[in-house]
Amino acid sequence: MTTPLLSSCGDLLDEVRRQSPLVQCITNYVAMNLAANVLLAAGASPAMVHAPAEAGEFARLSGAVTINIGTLSTLWLEGMCEAAKAAHESGKPWVLDPVAHFATAFRRKATEALLVLRPTVIRGNASEIMALAGDASSGRGVDSGDSVERAEVSAMVLARRAHAVVAVTGAVDFVTDGRDSVRIAGGSALMPKITAMGCALTGLVGACVAVAPAAPLMATVCALACFGVAGSQAAQTAQGPGSFAWQFIDALAALDGTALKAHAQVTHA
Amino acid sequence: MTTPLLSSCGDLLDEVRRQSPLVQCITNYVAMNLAANVLLAAGASPAMVHAPAEAGEFARLSGAVTINIGTLSTLWLEGMCEAAKAAHESGKPWVLDPVAHFATAFRRKATEALLVLRPTVIRGNASEIMALAGDASSGRGVDSGDSVERAEVSAMVLARRAHAVVAVTGAVDFVTDGRDSVRIAGGSALMPKITAMGCALTGLVGACVAVAPAAPLMATVCALACFGVAGSQAAQTAQGPGSFAWQFIDALAALDGTALKAHAQVTHA
Amino acid sequence: MTTPLLSSCGDLLDEVRRQSPLVQCITNYVAMNLAANVLLAAGASPAMVHAPAEAGEFARLSGAVTINIGTLSTLWLEGMCEAAKAAHESGKPWVLDPVAHFATAFRRKATEALLVLRPTVIRGNASEIMALAGDASSGRGVDSGDSVERAEVSAMVLARRAHAVVAVTGAVDFVTDGRDSVRIAGGSALMPKITAMGCALTGLVGACVAVAPAAPLMATVCALACFGVAGSQAAQTAQGPGSFAWQFIDALAALDGTALKAHAQVTHA
Repeated sequence: MTTPLLSSCGDLLDEVRRQSPLVQCITNYVAMNLAANVLLAAGASPAMVHAPAEAGEFARLSGAVTINIGTLSTLWLEGMCEAAKAAHESGKPWVLDPVAHFATAFRRKATEALLVLRPTVIRGNASEIMALAGDASSGRGVDSGDSVERAEVSAMVLARRAHAVVAVTGAVDFVTDGRDSVRIAGGSALMPKITAMGCALTGLVGACVAVAPAAPLMATVCALACFGVAGSQAAQTAQGPGSFAWQFIDALAALDGTALKAHAQVTHA
Repeated sequence: MTTPLLSSCGDLLDEVRRQSPLVQCITNYVAMNLAANVLLAAGASPAMVHAPAEAGEFARLSGAVTINIGTLSTLWLEGMCEAAKAAHESGKPWVLDPVAHFATAFRRKATEALLVLRPTVIRGNASEIMALAGDASSGRGVDSGDSVERAEVSAMVLARRAHAVVAVTGAVDFVTDGRDSVRIAGGSALMPKITAMGCALTGLVGACVAVAPAAPLMATVCALACFGVAGSQAAQTAQGPGSFAWQFIDALAALDGTALKAHAQVTHA
Repeated sequence: MTTPLLSSCGDLLDEVRRQSPLVQCITNYVAMNLAANVLLAAGASPAMVHAPAEAGEFARLSGAVTINIGTLSTLWLEGMCEAAKAAHESGKPWVLDPVAHFATAFRRKATEALLVLRPTVIRGNASEIMALAGDASSGRGVDSGDSVERAEVSAMVLARRAHAVVAVTGAVDFVTDGRDSVRIAGGSALMPKITAMGCALTGLVGACVAVAPAAPLMATVCALACFGVAGSQAAQTAQGPGSFAWQFIDALAALDGTALKAHAQVTHA
């Protein structure tokens, strides 16, 4: 049965392909290529622009900005803040991906500075979201040490405090704006075995929210549902993480609104 | 029928494989991996060396330098200028790829500074070349908003003004030195759906012009023809952009001068 | 016949998958994605953390650190030295990959500074190891101009001088601690046609030595043997470098200790 939420997600994917929103991705070195290919496969137009000298100016031209601190440095943080500030000031949505923000003092401070600039959506793994909400987590490095279930309350607390949509991704994703919450199933156990899938997903959230800036919860669910369906499809034929990676891109590129409505596993929590 | 131009292109590809020229690629973070793999598939030896502390010194050791401003920053621009200056002074060809140079003031100034250092070849999409020639374009971000046809006059004007070979790549490529012009067909509609294909092509232009520094027009046509043939071949079996990417590399790696002569779609304009 | 060394290698691979060591990789922009995917395929947890502001702090959290100077710059060198120093001080093993260290003055000085910080393992191609030992080499850019055989004596001299395990990788790899030496066969002629395979291998050495810090020679042999077996397997079905790349990841992800013991070609030199 196609729920109203699922129907909106399907329509939004078609709209992303129609509008091809320009999405400024400030992401880590590991993820850049995959993130760009994911956005292209979904019909968006990615642009990786990070320098303080132009990041703010470019943000005003973009439909949305996504910021991922995976390979953070002082100069990049400056560009991230410029872009986030410009996005906020010009009413453009922006997405924060606080990779391993708890690991070092530098990351903790950077994430605090970015949170002040009011992200529209925050996407992370369970350990990241729990730590961001001030809860104890088992995070270590960039991989999660906690289950999504354990992070659900943290996500709701964080969403209310930050006035943002919060997405916890894992085996079954959880998305909330602090009032409404949604779970998205699907995907594959191979996904965490491929680097930067989460970072690329953050980029896709940016593409969706660029096209539906007034509905960030639905836009986030749409992006996660696309990953769930494409991931499930790729897993049917993949022999391992190497073959999964390109089959996932093929599946995502072939996905349209109708298929998304038919196959996405989205339920209100 | 194999024209003299096509025959030269075929011979040049074989010569690239024989000489394996060292090509210094200063390119964007998104493109680095693909550019290196494209150069290796064509038999060249890529080296990504960008720091101001060594970019000029390394340029003197290289057969050619390629510079792409995709993920520009102040420090990288410094290294680019060092490398371009060293290439120019030591008589080495260098190739400029002015990604989205019109998008921000920072990019516009950077491109002006690089043009002063006399690139041998300038490669861009239609919007980039039109804007570089001072014409109105519909460019937005890194993807072209204009057709190659619309950019042909701009390319000729730019070639004469910059004393450079200018290549406009798209559905059918156009290459000109301001006097002679060539069109290269082939490729696939999947190519713009894979990030950094244009940037990687810039690297291959560098490899070809390293081996034929006195014939930059022909060298540029050769690189574009290689992409056209390998792209057409990969498209025959690809299921989407994910499978296209690796099949393109396989096709390029298998391409030799004889096959290039037989399959390239090159015509004098 | 499974020798004691081979048996230890097989057990170590299983242990890497069981412990999933956190490995801090400071590597070049070209290699980051492949290196992360290789480490994930082997069961490790890679983290690319390079900024001077946190590289040392993160090294103390990691099981091992790997440093590759492929796309070196002044700021990155600072982060590398912080991480190497922290690793050395906290008794964590670290691996040095001195890409093209002989090419420029900047690289030579950087490599000298890193060697002072006592790498546990040094991995390079024949030209790099020969030049590091002070011998004449035919290196040019990042590709080797010399055979592994020619570099064996240099490797032993360097191992003794640097109190490190030295690995020379090529057609048949050579690993030595200055007393015991091992050769590892296998792999494929396609491996040098894919960029950053050596850099990714350096990352895998880090994962192995993180789990067996007291046996760096065996840990290094284990990583090289994994590449040899996965490379041989991928080459059986690959059509070229493009298909080899993902088939290699699939093969590595499927490899376990038993298969490694059965197929690795490891002999005492």
